[in-house]
Amino acid sequence: MSELFAPRGSKKDIEESVVLAPKFDQNGLIPVVTTDYATGEVLMMAFMNAETLKMTIELGEAVYWSRSRKEIWHKGKTSGNVQVVREMRTDCDQDAIWLRVTVLGLSATCHVGYRSCFYRSIPTAQAAKDGVVLKFEETEKAYDPEKVYGKK
Amino acid sequence: MSELFAPRGSKKDIEESVVLAPKFDQNGLIPVVTTDYATGEVLMMAFMNAETLKMTIELGEAVYWSRSRKEIWHKGKTSGNVQVVREMRTDCDQDAIWLRVTVLGLSATCHVGYRSCFYRSIPTAQAAKDGVVLKFEETEKAYDPEKVYGKK
Repeated sequence: MSELFAPRGSKKDIEESVVLAPKFDQNGLIPVVTTDYATGEVLMMAFMNAETLKMTIELGEAVYWSRSRKEIWHKGKTSGNVQVVREMRTDCDQDAIWLRVTVLGLSATCHVGYRSCFYRSIPTAQAAKDGVVLKFEETEKAYDPEKVYGKK
Repeated sequence: MSELFAPRGSKKDIEESVVLAPKFDQNGLIPVVTTDYATGEVLMMAFMNAETLKMTIELGEAVYWSRSRKEIWHKGKTSGNVQVVREMRTDCDQDAIWLRVTVLGLSATCHVGYRSCFYRSIPTAQAAKDGVVLKFEETEKAYDPEKVYGKK
């Protein structure tokens, strides 16, 4: 599978060239941030290994590595909320991936039922002076997780 | 410093409550994605430890933990491109942070000189069939890194 990826070269090669040479961490994983193509909203953060990074590139749909289940995680295969990759990027040192996606089905990403996993904000600066109370930025769930995944 | 953070409770507490109980990995770090408040563009991905997460909340400016230099990294203190936090979020299982920022100074984030660290795209699906050649989505640097950081 590694023919898609080049070996890691010099700092200049990695940062300034058109060669894809991703860096995986000590667990063989690379962090991925996924945003909504239309709104720019961050939907989730997850990880890929070399195999699922290759699958994502070839398939044009987001395929992650599930650290908890230790298995390939083709996002949306159960719920119908498949993430179609509209654009994929890597960063300067090629140790992170950014996916811009259109979500099919219910257009929801989070297993809790929200559109984005980042449905709560943290107060900062002056607003945090009296303690940190999270604020729900999404006030309504997009779907009922029990109906999709079954009762836990 | 930990009074800002609650201990990790039940899955329901972590996902459905207003209590901030961040999860740090085996190295004491939590991944952070930073986007431009105005454009939604992903600028960078980095990490915070408990101390710099607390500093970010209290200061309202992005403070990361530099894994390579093993030190507190108040972004922009050298270059002038400080990241003012306009909104800060956490995700369902509270093991990731999303910062929405306005960048001061030259409005550039990447040490290579680009606005975003994610200045190159990866072809997917049909476009990747004949091999993967990265494409520069930013064709001009926002600043000359040698002028800001000195000659390497």
